[in-house]
Amino acid sequence: MPSLTFWFDLASSYSYLSAMRIEGLAAHSGVEITWRPFLLGPIFRRQGWETSPFNIYPAKGRYMVRDMQRIAASRQLPFCMPAVFPANSLLAARVALVGAEQGWIAPFVRGAFAAEFGKGADIAAHSVIADLLLELGLEPQSVLARAASEDIKLFLKKNTDHAEHNGIFGAPTFSCDDRELFWGDDRLEAAIAWAAKL
Amino acid sequence: MPSLTFWFDLASSYSYLSAMRIEGLAAHSGVEITWRPFLLGPIFRRQGWETSPFNIYPAKGRYMVRDMQRIAASRQLPFCMPAVFPANSLLAARVALVGAEQGWIAPFVRGAFAAEFGKGADIAAHSVIADLLLELGLEPQSVLARAASEDIKLFLKKNTDHAEHNGIFGAPTFSCDDRELFWGDDRLEAAIAWAAKL
Repeated sequence: MPSLTFWFDLASSYSYLSAMRIEGLAAHSGVEITWRPFLLGPIFRRQGWETSPFNIYPAKGRYMVRDMQRIAASRQLPFCMPAVFPANSLLAARVALVGAEQGWIAPFVRGAFAAEFGKGADIAAHSVIADLLLELGLEPQSVLARAASEDIKLFLKKNTDHAEHNGIFGAPTFSCDDRELFWGDDRLEAAIAWAAKL
Repeated sequence: MPSLTFWFDLASSYSYLSAMRIEGLAAHSGVEITWRPFLLGPIFRRQGWETSPFNIYPAKGRYMVRDMQRIAASRQLPFCMPAVFPANSLLAARVALVGAEQGWIAPFVRGAFAAEFGKGADIAAHSVIADLLLELGLEPQSVLARAASEDIKLFLKKNTDHAEHNGIFGAPTFSCDDRELFWGDDRLEAAIAWAAKL
């Protein structure tokens, strides 16, 4: 089955847009999606940025909010900026990787993005993550314990290194065979079409 | 008639993509296009960048070239990176503004982008610009003299200040009524749809 890797940071606004529609588009084209969370923070820092470019460059940040509002409205998605932007997405990314091990990464990530960019929640809060896990019928304490394990910490670090090594500099990015990269929610259709042809 | 302003820098690769298709899309929707060249250089410098972000961030630059190759191929457009990137687009922008006065800005800009990103020409060269003017049946010497006038220099400076003042930080950007901004060739359809509804 053709496959496509979906690279996202849980703090990324445009990754929210893709998370909410990627499985529907992929299923329609017979493409299998691998969900891979990573952290943009270390990649940005190695470029000399201490925060999101949307904060460093205010005109770009204002534009992003308006662009998100328009696109979310056209897709009937709720949208608001979270109280803290960018969120510290470390905990959510580690929990997502527990979901990758256990088979619930996609619904967890959709839930986390919907809480963050649909309701303004701060996904750095343990209580927010615990609520999301409960909604999925999971036991927060054991999942959070696993998320704090060395295995999972290393898994996330490796994902981030892998992303950077393969030329990824923003999120969402879609990759085919670690070679062909497509950056941005606006490239999702092209990425799926590319994967389907391989 | 509904109208949309097309802000572009003649050194901008993605502006090439829009220049080659905007009139066709706009005519189809009954939207009139105002072509407004400006310079990204001064805006970038005030953000602390001495060159294009595609040069400052190599991963982003490599990605842009690949993204342009794919999109150009899908639209049957030739594409190559010019020898000098970003080109010094000052002369070409001033000549374009003479074209705005005299009614030939659109074919001149399409010609300049096609020479630059279709054939790799350096649009900073007077000879390249003179050839483009000859192809349009114009007299290069008188156009270049007008392009060097204080009026035209001031016109370009005002366009650039106007763009920055209105929150423009990249090219191409499409604006409706100086308020609603759409950034990037991938937002062209949305911009035209927005303008058509006003």
